[in-house]
Order: sequence, then structure tokens, then C-alpha cells
Amino acid sequence: MTPPFVHQLRVRYHECDAQGIVFNAHHFAYFDVTLTELWRELFGSYDALVRAGSDVVVVDAQATFRGSPRFDDLLDVEMTIAELGNSSMTSSFEERRDGELLVTGRMVHVFVDSKTMSKQQIPSDVRERLSRYVA
Amino acid sequence: MTPPFVHQLRVRYHECDAQGIVFNAHHFAYFDVTLTELWRELFGSYDALVRAGSDVVVVDAQATFRGSPRFDDLLDVEMTIAELGNSSMTSSFEERRDGELLVTGRMVHVFVDSKTMSKQQIPSDVRERLSRYVA
Amino acid sequence: MTPPFVHQLRVRYHECDAQGIVFNAHHFAYFDVTLTELWRELFGSYDALVRAGSDVVVVDAQATFRGSPRFDDLLDVEMTIAELGNSSMTSSFEERRDGELLVTGRMVHVFVDSKTMSKQQIPSDVRERLSRYVA
Amino acid sequence: MTPPFVHQLRVRYHECDAQGIVFNAHHFAYFDVTLTELWRELFGSYDALVRAGSDVVVVDAQATFRGSPRFDDLLDVEMTIAELGNSSMTSSFEERRDGELLVTGRMVHVFVDSKTMSKQQIPSDVRERLSRYVA
Repeated sequence: MTPPFVHQLRVRYHECDAQGIVFNAHHFAYFDVTLTELWRELFGSYDALVRAGSDVVVVDAQATFRGSPRFDDLLDVEMTIAELGNSSMTSSFEERRDGELLVTGRMVHVFVDSKTMSKQQIPSDVRERLSRYVA
Repeated sequence: MTPPFVHQLRVRYHECDAQGIVFNAHHFAYFDVTLTELWRELFGSYDALVRAGSDVVVVDAQATFRGSPRFDDLLDVEMTIAELGNSSMTSSFEERRDGELLVTGRMVHVFVDSKTMSKQQIPSDVRERLSRYVA
Repeated sequence: MTPPFVHQLRVRYHECDAQGIVFNAHHFAYFDVTLTELWRELFGSYDALVRAGSDVVVVDAQATFRGSPRFDDLLDVEMTIAELGNSSMTSSFEERRDGELLVTGRMVHVFVDSKTMSKQQIPSDVRERLSRYVA
Repeated sequence: MTPPFVHQLRVRYHECDAQGIVFNAHHFAYFDVTLTELWRELFGSYDALVRAGSDVVVVDAQATFRGSPRFDDLLDVEMTIAELGNSSMTSSFEERRDGELLVTGRMVHVFVDSKTMSKQQIPSDVRERLSRYVA
């Protein structure tokens, strides 16, 4: 396991707008789907993370569009953890079609206690597993 | 208050697909948004219904597309309760643009206890209020 | 190739609502995604069908919810062509999780000339390929 | 007309996730819906802008989440044009519930010729109208 973590997905018809390209908001869903797959690889599932006492909330999201994914395109969504703070995780994303970089992005998540939803320090076991995908 | 209950909404850009028309799945969201407004009119809000002990789950959904709503169209979504059973409510929907009928639909909801999510008979107060929009 | 045509997909986080289950409208997107994969198998892609002169528009959609797919569930969406008319195709769908039937559905598409968008008889080559998945 | 331009919208049930809050990607759709209303106010409609020869494509999108809009919340989405370049428009957004600031955002659009989709200088008439909402 070395970064980036890569999840491949196919652009769905209804994710494309009248311009024939993926509507910008859906890229943030692609980032989220990729994070879900990273949870699966590192913890078994997102639910396993939650049951172990940790959840995450999004505090910042950003994307830059260099090119335009279209319907039926097969995209590699690459995720790298750029920074692990005490409570926060900053991730960077790259969407590629046949190697061509189309979209870059960045999300900041804050860890919270999954019962109380109050901010928590990233537990050491979680930090250790995540560290495999730190840049 | 006489049926139909009418909610007006405007078609959003991202709800339209590469054919330039509303993607079929979004019409079921339009039906749901209209039901939410009916809860508001009859109970104050959907949350008020839930706090009073009742929730609904969708068991059947259907739509027929006669015409094609497009981006920026202003739609009147008309809802009529076709049938109130012991536990279930069957609603019919019509989407009109300037009076022209574009889409018809039908949904069946079952009432459940909002705490246990098990089936419940429609409480008499709920039934009485809903009866105003029964065809 | 014998019916049903099966496409496997995983429920995404944002497709689930506050009840923790897939919001009903998204199932119609699942049906559409599955149809796209059937076009891929039979014609190379949906775009290849369109380039060959045929497109489809949805005229009717229906779903019955027996159970509740949840976040991260892996679903088998099974599609069978129930009927091929002169211009129309009626498809039936079943969503299963580990074999358990959760959702059934039915969609009617009408074939149109992909340039003029006016109704067309299903071309014989298209009909022949589709016939492999007729029940 | 003085900035900000304000569009009010209500959070829909299916825009909220299992955490009970608006899924982050939908905020970018809220920004887009608000821009559509600004086009309506300044040009009659987005289509009128396109017919007059101009279209826009998103090149950058960003949002910061301070609070959590929930189902049925009524949000004021405030939009101000932060900068008008030769070809680009940078907009800032604030989502408020009863005055409380929940979400801030920023989008960069590039103007393109609506026929060729190649970059264009913002036409002087368009620039003049947009200038009413420049900070």
C-alpha cells in the first residue's frame, strides 16, 4: 500500500448535464465514494470505523476542473492524504481518464466521536492505518 | 382546502440530462417534495408528524411521461390522495407546465410508528386532516 | 447470454436518506445504469447505439419496495426484457442483496430516431441483439 | 440592486444524508441554482444569455462548512461577484439560516462563446449588467 489510493468508477448518464459533461457537484460525490473505498481497505468498512467510535464530518471541499469527464468515461479517482492533524485529515484527489488529468480536488474532514459527534483526536490505531496513504 | 394540493417548483439545471429534459428519477423527488409541502400545510411540518408518532415509507412508485419538462420550466405538481386504507395512503400526481399535463404518477406510502418503524393504523387525527385532500 | 442481464453496484452514502435507506428515486437511476451496461454488452456502448441511429426515451417507470437497501450494500440489479413491441421495450428489474429480493421494477422505453427524436420501429439488428435478453 | 443577490430555497429531504444534514456536494448545486436566478434577474433567463452568445463553464468550486443545514431548513443563499476578469467571474456565496452563517463558498466561471464553447471576453453588455452585483 502506497499512495495514491485509487478507485475506478464510471460516469453515469444522469450525472451529466445539458452540456454533456459531469455536473460539477457530482465530483464531490466521487471524492466521497473514493473515501468510502479507502475506509473499506483500511478498516473493513466505514461502518466498522463508526462502530469503533470514530466518524468524520466535512469542513472544506474544493475542486479545480481542467477537463471535462463525459458520460460513460471510466475515471481513476486517486486519493492521497496530504496532512493528518490532531483531529483533521486533508486529502487531495485527482481524477484521470486514461492517465489524462481532468479534475483535482481537496477535502478536509474532522474526526468526531461517532456517538456524541463532538471533535476527537484521531485515535492512534486509526492514525496508523491512515498513515499508509499519507503523501 | 380542496384537492388537488398544488406545489410549484422550478426545474434545476442539474436535474436535466444530456437530452435536455428532466431525468426520469428526479420526478419521484418532485413528488416527495410536494408531499413534504402537504405535511407542512396539514401538520405544520413533516417533523411535527414524526414527533406526533407517525412516519411513512414508500412501498410503490410509478410515473408516466407524456411530455418533457425542461430546464427552468416552472411546474405545478398537483397531488390528490386517491385512497386512504387502514395503514396505507395512495397518492396521485400530475405535473403541469402552464396547464399542459406532462407527467402523471402514483405513490403508495405505508404509515409506521416513528419510533419502532413498524406498521401502524393511520391515527384518527392524521386521517381526518388527510381527508381534506382525498379525491 | 441468457436473461436476466445482471449488473452489480454498490449503494453510495449520498444515495441514502435520513432513514438510512436508499431514497426511492435513486432506484430508477440504478435501473438506468443497468440499461447502460446492457447497451455496452450488446452494442459496445450506448453511444454506439445512438451513432447507429437509435435512441430511447422513458415513457413509464415503476418500482415496488419490499425491503430496504442500505449504505454500502452490494446489489445485483437483474434486468429482463419482458416485451419488445414495434417501437417499445418493456423491461423488468429485480434488485437483490445476497440473493434476497428487495426491489422490483418495470420501465417502458420507446425507440426514437437519434437525429430527429421521432418514434422509430426498432431496427432489425437492434431487435435481434435485444432478443437475447427477452424473457 | 446592490449585492448580495439573495435566493431563498428550502432543503429537500433527499439532499440530507444519514447524518441528517445536507450532503456536501448538494451545496454546489445550491450555488448553481442561485446563479441561475441571478441570470434570470439580469438577463431574463440563462437561456437568454446563451442565445445572446455567451455561456459559462465552471473551472473552480470551493465550500467551507461552519454549520449544518438540515432537512426543511429555509436557506438564504447570498451571492456576490468578487471579481470580473477579462473572461472569468469569481463569485462568493454565503448560506444563512435565520441570519446564522452556515456555509461559505466560492466559484470561478469562465465565459465561452455559446456556439463554439471557446473562451470569450465578457461582452460589454454582460459585464455592465453583472457589475451591479460586484462587491
